[in-house]
Amino acid sequence: MTKVSITELTPGTMLERSADVFGSKTAIVYEHTALTYEEFRQATIRTARALLASGVRPGDRVAYLMPNLPEMLIAHFAVPLIPAVLVAINTRLSGPEIEYILDHSGASILVVDSALHPVVADHLDGRPELREVVVLHDPASGAGPVASHTSFDEFVARGSDEPLPFAVDDEERTISINYTSGTTGRPKGVMYSHRGGYLNAIAELIHSNHVPESVYLWTLPMFHCNGWCTTWAVTAIGGTHICLRAPEPGAIWKAIREHGVTHLNAAPTVLVSMVNHPDAGPLPQRDGNPFVVTTAGAPPSPTIIAQMNELGAKMVHVYGLTETYGPYSICEPQPEWADVPLEERVRLMARQGVAFIGADPIRVVDEDMNDVPRDGETMGEVVMRGNNVMKGYHDDADATERAFRGGWFHSGDLGVWHPDGYIQLRDRSKDIIISGGENISTIEVEQAIVSHDAVLEAAVVAMPHEKWGERPIAYVTLKPGASAEPDEIIVHVRDRLAHFKAPDVVEIVDQLPKTSTGKIQKFVLREPLWANRETRIN
Amino acid sequence: MTKVSITELTPGTMLERSADVFGSKTAIVYEHTALTYEEFRQATIRTARALLASGVRPGDRVAYLMPNLPEMLIAHFAVPLIPAVLVAINTRLSGPEIEYILDHSGASILVVDSALHPVVADHLDGRPELREVVVLHDPASGAGPVASHTSFDEFVARGSDEPLPFAVDDEERTISINYTSGTTGRPKGVMYSHRGGYLNAIAELIHSNHVPESVYLWTLPMFHCNGWCTTWAVTAIGGTHICLRAPEPGAIWKAIREHGVTHLNAAPTVLVSMVNHPDAGPLPQRDGNPFVVTTAGAPPSPTIIAQMNELGAKMVHVYGLTETYGPYSICEPQPEWADVPLEERVRLMARQGVAFIGADPIRVVDEDMNDVPRDGETMGEVVMRGNNVMKGYHDDADATERAFRGGWFHSGDLGVWHPDGYIQLRDRSKDIIISGGENISTIEVEQAIVSHDAVLEAAVVAMPHEKWGERPIAYVTLKPGASAEPDEIIVHVRDRLAHFKAPDVVEIVDQLPKTSTGKIQKFVLREPLWANRETRIN
Repeated sequence: MTKVSITELTPGTMLERSADVFGSKTAIVYEHTALTYEEFRQATIRTARALLASGVRPGDRVAYLMPNLPEMLIAHFAVPLIPAVLVAINTRLSGPEIEYILDHSGASILVVDSALHPVVADHLDGRPELREVVVLHDPASGAGPVASHTSFDEFVARGSDEPLPFAVDDEERTISINYTSGTTGRPKGVMYSHRGGYLNAIAELIHSNHVPESVYLWTLPMFHCNGWCTTWAVTAIGGTHICLRAPEPGAIWKAIREHGVTHLNAAPTVLVSMVNHPDAGPLPQRDGNPFVVTTAGAPPSPTIIAQMNELGAKMVHVYGLTETYGPYSICEPQPEWADVPLEERVRLMARQGVAFIGADPIRVVDEDMNDVPRDGETMGEVVMRGNNVMKGYHDDADATERAFRGGWFHSGDLGVWHPDGYIQLRDRSKDIIISGGENISTIEVEQAIVSHDAVLEAAVVAMPHEKWGERPIAYVTLKPGASAEPDEIIVHVRDRLAHFKAPDVVEIVDQLPKTSTGKIQKFVLREPLWANRETRIN
Repeated sequence: MTKVSITELTPGTMLERSADVFGSKTAIVYEHTALTYEEFRQATIRTARALLASGVRPGDRVAYLMPNLPEMLIAHFAVPLIPAVLVAINTRLSGPEIEYILDHSGASILVVDSALHPVVADHLDGRPELREVVVLHDPASGAGPVASHTSFDEFVARGSDEPLPFAVDDEERTISINYTSGTTGRPKGVMYSHRGGYLNAIAELIHSNHVPESVYLWTLPMFHCNGWCTTWAVTAIGGTHICLRAPEPGAIWKAIREHGVTHLNAAPTVLVSMVNHPDAGPLPQRDGNPFVVTTAGAPPSPTIIAQMNELGAKMVHVYGLTETYGPYSICEPQPEWADVPLEERVRLMARQGVAFIGADPIRVVDEDMNDVPRDGETMGEVVMRGNNVMKGYHDDADATERAFRGGWFHSGDLGVWHPDGYIQLRDRSKDIIISGGENISTIEVEQAIVSHDAVLEAAVVAMPHEKWGERPIAYVTLKPGASAEPDEIIVHVRDRLAHFKAPDVVEIVDQLPKTSTGKIQKFVLREPLWANRETRIN
């Protein structure tokens, strides 16, 4: 029987509708080019056809290594259309890290920005499943074209304008794999479904107050959780995407004023760079509606919330993980907060809040999966479930099973539950450092450090940083009789990992604080670093 | 395996979230009572528990015959919670019509407002599956309590506060059955699913610009498509429901000013009564946002759109049928319309438009299911498909198959497709008359007329009516030698059907215009009635 009453949910239908309804409206702006929604659809079909002509088949993985360019946005519709799986790789990773993701995902095609090509140039040969590398040359990058691979123009020329149905055969099919920063040393491939992408995009749309008049600035990298599903959400409502190669504060302010931006998403660290920039000033207000800033990636400090409010921003504070399609919870403002003094209000707003519309209730649980008391004091682990939780880790059933133990996704984040039902993060059980919105696995950095011949043990923790929120600091013990300078260890890490993961400070110590069973007590190292801060960041 | 990544979609989760997040906020206001969201949840659980204690089992039908009271809204969550099926009956139907619906749906319980009890009093005995009748006494109705049945208080006292999970085992399960006006003489039971109710509510929420600050006035009957799924949508966003026993224009204006209403849904006829009422005046604007009026049920005239705009309303014009959960399409405003002269703009706005977010594209097709040209002239039938289309007709596989032929739902509405992709209704192939937002089946009225001994044949068509939009007029031929007065025939119909279905005018004629195959040519009767109208309503 034809399913007259059921259409499988897929973000693809979001582009189809906006192209049907807002065909002549500006969909994407970048530098001196602009695409209408009809052109957006045509570019999507042409790219999808090019992928098919290049031998990509349903379920194959297609990797993109690219900043927030129109082609990256188009890939969010073109790859699922055929229906393949998008792997949008973090552009800040090092060659070996990207190599690992290419191999683990088994990507058959890599599309790479020519300015990023040098990072991976030495890591493209001998990949078992990588059949072709396509290089996009963006003149605005300053980098030249790369002759040794297929150019993006050649690639797209393989396509055609022959329509493809904006539909999927099964809404639980994987739409994308987004790699975590790897809390156990290796990144894990988080699988999103078409259904999950659709429902999360709709929730984003509601909670960030998007309207067809939205002009959305791409400060948030699209490789983070597919831009928190905003790639799909802004397209669904028929808003205008303003692409930006790099979220530098000067470029952000310029774009806001030039394009009449109404919405942006950003980690608190980007907001800090914005408010401290000489170009900072009142944010535009559309027809009396406030400029909407949706923030996540790290708990925003009350200070930055208050500063953004002063510039005219309505702050939407959300929280989630790669495993939850980006945002899962929102600090939903209560009517009575309007009467609360500013200082108290921003403190309330700095909490991680309650589940999104469409998400199952968020919980804070003890080790037996019982709710912790709602006292704002008892710590527990934050767990989630439902349509806003990943399908699982790609090709890692063990890790999936561990993460899903007890029928809930275990975030690894520790928090408390307040009497009003709002949750608040207190610590991260996995000791992840969030630097400029990027996750840094301390374990990964520690492993890089201990690979130095002179090092015995290492413990990396987060230290507060005005610009980046957090930066890694390493406490290192040396092997008996060995010697090494801190700078030498930093260089050693930079040779092995993305530069932003290397610690800013290395302290050589005689011994590390440990529990009786020999486990390093990181909190002993961390506490003095944070104790003197006027306001706790969490 | 536990489905960590999938939660079955159900509107139930919408109430759960708002009770969790906005527990102390006002959810429902009626006369002198107000319920918070936590109280809304508790009342829902208590009612659901009372249904269970009364022997209602999953899948059983529970009928409500009630105006827009808090208990009717609560039923939209309580009945699906256990999970039974809500049958909200049109309060304007006659006893025999309600009797038919009770029998056809096989409702095991009927909950009826004491003021409506007299309509059904003689039709409650001998119903094969109806086990119990519960009568709610609303003092504001002016009617007294009814002692002969279970009182609502007794019924609810059977319940308890023991929690029930706001979840459903299968999102494709039936959540409600909404009866059509019966285009082939008998009403058909349109089955909605939990998934469809959820997705449509979300779409309503987006297109009607609902926000947590929404104060929604219940002018639209909840028995119409579960209030176009707004019962669930306003609850999802955490807005405030203002209940109203009868949508009289004086009461509407009073409620708007008393409660700071921000949103309402209404058929154009209700809007006409509003603008022509002595209390009419500027509509309140929340923080500079326009008052939102979502209209459907009949094509709104450009005149009423312009009049509502003048009072400060943003008009959201939507179109759909009972079979499409209420609204399926929206006349989405285009940016360039802002520069179009008012007269032209309201003409554009009076079209039925494009599919909702979440709905499959709407089509106008010829008899072979091919798209008609987008010329604004070629007529075809409007067809729909996907998550916003009913599961089918309850206990009527034949009618379902006919309605779903070719893999699409056939609306029976005739329309044209404009070059900009917007559809516009031109006629109704089923000859339905829409009077004051209520559908009247001409076939049903004709059958009532011909049941009069003196009548040979009858043809009922719509004539224009300033207040109700359309009213039925009957052309009647008499049996040879028989005689009957028009008034006598009108009384005959009123004895058999809801009074509003009786024709305003009966004309006794010698013969009816017919095709060569003997089919009555209704358009020949209709055209002269509509030809002199300055503006076509469609």
